[in-house]
Amino acid sequence: MTKFELDPRLAANPHILDWPLCSVLLENDARFPWLILVPRQASVSEIFDLSVKDRAQLYLEVTTAAERLSTAMNPTKMNVAMLGNMVSQLHAHVIARFEGDAAWPGPVWGVGTRQSYEARIAIDRVAEIANVLGPKP
Amino acid sequence: MTKFELDPRLAANPHILDWPLCSVLLENDARFPWLILVPRQASVSEIFDLSVKDRAQLYLEVTTAAERLSTAMNPTKMNVAMLGNMVSQLHAHVIARFEGDAAWPGPVWGVGTRQSYEARIAIDRVAEIANVLGPKP
Repeated sequence: MTKFELDPRLAANPHILDWPLCSVLLENDARFPWLILVPRQASVSEIFDLSVKDRAQLYLEVTTAAERLSTAMNPTKMNVAMLGNMVSQLHAHVIARFEGDAAWPGPVWGVGTRQSYEARIAIDRVAEIANVLGPKP
Repeated sequence: MTKFELDPRLAANPHILDWPLCSVLLENDARFPWLILVPRQASVSEIFDLSVKDRAQLYLEVTTAAERLSTAMNPTKMNVAMLGNMVSQLHAHVIARFEGDAAWPGPVWGVGTRQSYEARIAIDRVAEIANVLGPKP
């Protein structure tokens, strides 16, 4: 058994909280309210690499995150995606999108220049989103 | 009750088959093996607008499509996404990605120029993918 280790490119983003299957991270880009959910499972890159039970839990956690972020922020649209072309460790993006945001109406990946959070603001943002996410699904 | 109607921008893509919840379409872009799954439900734009039962079925159909397409084509990575910034009717993209494809390693949306299938090739492609997708999940 390989041990789970978070890819360092994912680990560069602030950690918000752990849910039963996933660690929830805040993508370090202040332009978008953007969560990353990473199942704490070793050697998994595709959703169908997970057990049927873990797939259901991943989907539950992703849907819950999307719904709660949407309720809190009232975006134009939620974007949910599992791409992994650059970082193959399985992870799901959950992003609140607003008409007129920095990438609208295109997808957010690779658009413009990331705006990293200032350290103090990141701390506040993590606390705020942990509150939005609420109890474990 | 509003009746389900496929958004005309989605309906412009060849229809492959119907699964219990979703119609499966072939994105009309020969550069990528690219499916679109559309739940046949009226007035739904977010995954959490579906009933809990339908969410589970959507996830089952999306995961099954991704796994079977991956098995048949052996891509570098599968991409799965629900964006909907342009077409808000809920739909899931399931795309087989290959190192060096026309958008690699970025996402496929909005990149370069769509290469529509020639009519005869589209018919063959639909038959081929219907065969890959196999029985209803």
